Amino acid sequence: MQKYLNRQWRLASRPIGDIKESDFEYREEVIPHPEDGEILVRSIYLSLDPTNRIWMSDRPQYMPPVELGEVMRGLVVGVVEESKNPKFQPGDLVSGALGWQDYALISPQNLLYLTKLPQPLTVPLTAFLHPLSFIGCTAYFGLLDIGKPQPGETVVVSAASGAVGSLVGQIAKIKGCRVVGITGSDEKCQLLVDELGFDAAINYKTADLIPALAASCPNGIDIYFENVGGEILDAVLTQVNLNARIPLCGLISTYNAQELVPGPYNFGQILMQRVLVQGFIITDYLQQWDVAFRDIGEWLQEEKIKYTQEIVAGLENAPKAILKLFDGDKMGKLIVKISEEP
Amino acid sequence: MQKYLNRQWRLASRPIGDIKESDFEYREEVIPHPEDGEILVRSIYLSLDPTNRIWMSDRPQYMPPVELGEVMRGLVVGVVEESKNPKFQPGDLVSGALGWQDYALISPQNLLYLTKLPQPLTVPLTAFLHPLSFIGCTAYFGLLDIGKPQPGETVVVSAASGAVGSLVGQIAKIKGCRVVGITGSDEKCQLLVDELGFDAAINYKTADLIPALAASCPNGIDIYFENVGGEILDAVLTQVNLNARIPLCGLISTYNAQELVPGPYNFGQILMQRVLVQGFIITDYLQQWDVAFRDIGEWLQEEKIKYTQEIVAGLENAPKAILKLFDGDKMGKLIVKISEEP
Repeated sequence: MQKYLNRQWRLASRPIGDIKESDFEYREEVIPHPEDGEILVRSIYLSLDPTNRIWMSDRPQYMPPVELGEVMRGLVVGVVEESKNPKFQPGDLVSGALGWQDYALISPQNLLYLTKLPQPLTVPLTAFLHPLSFIGCTAYFGLLDIGKPQPGETVVVSAASGAVGSLVGQIAKIKGCRVVGITGSDEKCQLLVDELGFDAAINYKTADLIPALAASCPNGIDIYFENVGGEILDAVLTQVNLNARIPLCGLISTYNAQELVPGPYNFGQILMQRVLVQGFIITDYLQQWDVAFRDIGEWLQEEKIKYTQEIVAGLENAPKAILKLFDGDKMGKLIVKISEEP
Repeated sequence: MQKYLNRQWRLASRPIGDIKESDFEYREEVIPHPEDGEILVRSIYLSLDPTNRIWMSDRPQYMPPVELGEVMRGLVVGVVEESKNPKFQPGDLVSGALGWQDYALISPQNLLYLTKLPQPLTVPLTAFLHPLSFIGCTAYFGLLDIGKPQPGETVVVSAASGAVGSLVGQIAKIKGCRVVGITGSDEKCQLLVDELGFDAAINYKTADLIPALAASCPNGIDIYFENVGGEILDAVLTQVNLNARIPLCGLISTYNAQELVPGPYNFGQILMQRVLVQGFIITDYLQQWDVAFRDIGEWLQEEKIKYTQEIVAGLENAPKAILKLFDGDKMGKLIVKISEEP
């Protein structure tokens, strides 16, 4: 029914504190058509990620923020509908930052940022928004390149049932580590242990974190894959081993804060235990993504890693769906289905 | 006049907040004499260092704390007075953790922790408590191994007029960096620039730190050698470049705190700018100290590095002298002279 319209969500205002649905403005435009060298892509699935919150703000960040009035930025997998570029044919599946809209017109220079997916598909299309996307790479390089896990070491991951965290834990298991996840409900804890093979899981909403960590990590913590910040980081710092590594992937607990949030009170432990803290953004590893995709692809084939997704139907629901990232009320990768797969 | 007595300062109580002189207890003992395999060392110079404050507490730390009632731990250079060990002769100069006392009896197993100094001396004896001690190694490995300075990069060092900081800045200059020191008086600022070759210096007591750093570091900060913590770290984090490195050597601003101190409010910059923060303790580099001593020894000969020292006369004044480490009222290395050089 939206065949002749390109529905879009544009950034209307920079969120103050929590994202509100009214921070997005709905627009309908005429579907554009490609001119020489351009292609038109129809969006199928849209990825919603905590880092979207950063792009919506104008705080110092790792790429330019989304400007007010611009189509909201987001990773999409889609299908080429029309092509005036010899490198793409209608029916090609692609992924890229096409934004929160039904259709994206891609100029020749922006084609560089578009990835053609291997066809025929051997995995579900949504895998290209999760284990075989920047999400999978984030888990892979943060854990392996910065964390450098050794067999027998203990790895703790926060936001463990999230898109990145759930992969981190499973890759750490493949590498022979003891893995403890921190998440926000007993149900998710059980899923981490029963379905994803974590050794233990902690519900941060009900547990007394320090004794819970001490009990789950009897040999201390060697690697803490950090997605959250705040109190969880502080508790972990009390339990880190000598020469522990903390890949700093995200600080979701602080993204909605309206005032400066204090850093960890146990910052001194970084000195005492000679801890390495390394912030990273996955685009820094762009040249090596194919290595990650090769390994993760193999693990998927061998069923050594699983991924869970929550798929919300309808582009119209994207502004409401993104709130789920911050209220702890989701499991795995959050995806909006925009249109049907070919 | 103390010929027949071994004066000692023992730890009487763990400081609450600032160190008080009454945290030490004065004792006089009979000078011991060595038995088989032992040696007796007379203390000449005692090193006072911020890390002493950590040893006096029972917080989690990198070596066992000094027990209440024990002779206070401290690095000393001294001379062998009596020896019942064929490896040492009276007159040999040594350095080691002999403690706050006139004489130390060293058992054969503890001889491992004693370093025999090269004789005849080619540098003043006090150099073995400063550039040619763990202090010099701390500056050397923290800056070079963790900081990895490249020519043209900007290095900021806090507690820049202190024993470690003043060496860090000079080594960074040798490596071709722009060097900015942060210290606590205009007089010290001038000394850093005029005497030690720093490019700029900031008086943190009077400057508005963020604009002062921005002005002194027009190309941003690539390396921050951290001795202090607190507000200075927070200000620096606003100015760090992509892939900056922060060797975390000390957090002197927090050592006397009676309550937990918040970590840096700008902790998120570690993520956004992909900063590396690495805590280190110089004993981790023990196997490589000779490399540092070789380089630093050469730089001393070539007069590429200078060192300033403040020497307080008399072991009896050690408990008062150590307070200078925390009130910002000293320049360079703080040393207590216990007895005459041979």
